[in-house]
Amino acid sequence: MYPGDIRDPNWEKSAREIFQAQGLMAYLGIELQALRPGYAMLVAPYRPELSQQAGFFHGGVMATLVDNSGGIASGTLKAADQDVLAAEFKINLLRPGIGERLVAEAQVVRPGRTLTVARMEVFAETDGKRTLCAIGQGTYAYVDRA
Amino acid sequence: MYPGDIRDPNWEKSAREIFQAQGLMAYLGIELQALRPGYAMLVAPYRPELSQQAGFFHGGVMATLVDNSGGIASGTLKAADQDVLAAEFKINLLRPGIGERLVAEAQVVRPGRTLTVARMEVFAETDGKRTLCAIGQGTYAYVDRA
Amino acid sequence: MYPGDIRDPNWEKSAREIFQAQGLMAYLGIELQALRPGYAMLVAPYRPELSQQAGFFHGGVMATLVDNSGGIASGTLKAADQDVLAAEFKINLLRPGIGERLVAEAQVVRPGRTLTVARMEVFAETDGKRTLCAIGQGTYAYVDRA
Amino acid sequence: MYPGDIRDPNWEKSAREIFQAQGLMAYLGIELQALRPGYAMLVAPYRPELSQQAGFFHGGVMATLVDNSGGIASGTLKAADQDVLAAEFKINLLRPGIGERLVAEAQVVRPGRTLTVARMEVFAETDGKRTLCAIGQGTYAYVDRA
Repeated sequence: MYPGDIRDPNWEKSAREIFQAQGLMAYLGIELQALRPGYAMLVAPYRPELSQQAGFFHGGVMATLVDNSGGIASGTLKAADQDVLAAEFKINLLRPGIGERLVAEAQVVRPGRTLTVARMEVFAETDGKRTLCAIGQGTYAYVDRA
Repeated sequence: MYPGDIRDPNWEKSAREIFQAQGLMAYLGIELQALRPGYAMLVAPYRPELSQQAGFFHGGVMATLVDNSGGIASGTLKAADQDVLAAEFKINLLRPGIGERLVAEAQVVRPGRTLTVARMEVFAETDGKRTLCAIGQGTYAYVDRA
Repeated sequence: MYPGDIRDPNWEKSAREIFQAQGLMAYLGIELQALRPGYAMLVAPYRPELSQQAGFFHGGVMATLVDNSGGIASGTLKAADQDVLAAEFKINLLRPGIGERLVAEAQVVRPGRTLTVARMEVFAETDGKRTLCAIGQGTYAYVDRA
Repeated sequence: MYPGDIRDPNWEKSAREIFQAQGLMAYLGIELQALRPGYAMLVAPYRPELSQQAGFFHGGVMATLVDNSGGIASGTLKAADQDVLAAEFKINLLRPGIGERLVAEAQVVRPGRTLTVARMEVFAETDGKRTLCAIGQGTYAYVDRA
């Protein structure tokens, strides 16, 4: 999708390693389901440990999905000797997160040398039917490894 | 702090019940440490399960703290027959979350009948010394219970 | 586009009147170029009065376009006896605003009874060629007229 | 305020020049009223040209003040051979902008080498009495001059 923007031939391995090194993802049961240059899809199957007061997915889980799907998507376009960090993001919670799983998709809309901007969508999915629950946009910074 | 804005005499019990009913808080080990009208403080002691790729607190944990400290702070000012929901929030991640615990403070800046706006700060704390790690601002909606 | 969400049969006239009653739009030379239920397009032809320090479109003009395209788009879905107000919005400035005009498009993604959420895009356009300059998302509130 | 963060001994002259070179500021009648390292105050006296549909200050003017007060405040901490650009910001509109003037204050909360984060407040002021109308937070990027 952004072939001209790929700077690390090992982008896929690198992005997967970043995801797998994040203790929070395993603990929340979040999986990296799809990965392309400038794009990532994360999935969080429902469990009561992810709930807010009504038993639905907590907004913090949606925010974590927004944050990290954007970070992994942006990470596919970094250079080999860089790390990727979230600088900021914003989320609008549109509907309660009711469903078997949350699916988050992030798409880079502006790849850059040091700053990359991505848009995110979070869906609640049940029996393959998706409902848009949250949208986000954020900025990710590439920093040279020490 | 907002005595004129308190609409539910049982605001404290109600806000604590909301917090305790959120499965995510217990699962992440987040505690509600202080509560006043229009104000809430949450604390997340460090554990590897909360980490990003470098072992520091994950941005998703900071975002969860921003989201929920604002929600609980706003919840202290709701009416008795209302629920409080996050409508949206934004977070700027200023420094890596390195420390024994994260401390989030939320302060309502604009209480309203249906919409309340709060500002949030997240600190990394070690040996009682705090470093500002993230700032946020968000909108919380009061919805009548069905 | 949102036929089921239209609540005021005079939505088009009402939205146009709101736009025309805004002194700032005429002063900045911003035009309402297209209007559909849940959608609005605004255009700002370049003039030096809209510039930042390098002579390009000022970020404040892009933000004004984001704010108001979202407000007008959301206004098409309000009830007849309501006003529409921006509650909040966020903008990412992706590229400098260099061109003959700025074109802003707003699309409602979540129409609601009291809160509506929209996404916005701002393009710099020259000779009919568009470059994405800014993206935004915001929340608009419907308030009953006194 | 941030003496250790000043990188350009001519920071004041430079920040004032940036402000004065922005055609939009003169056109909207916005003045740079106070300037310190990491801090800026802008003022917009009321005129009908700055209004929304009810005759109050337009949200676009508040957003412009948020954007630019943060930019000028951040600009005081840049290096001499750098420009400062807004990367993104967010605004919550708390109350209608009713008053003789709008006063915006921006304070850097995290100065950086390439990214600086600031918080902004916009007040409506009449007879010296201030009402908080909007709050914002944003990220500003320092880019080397070509």
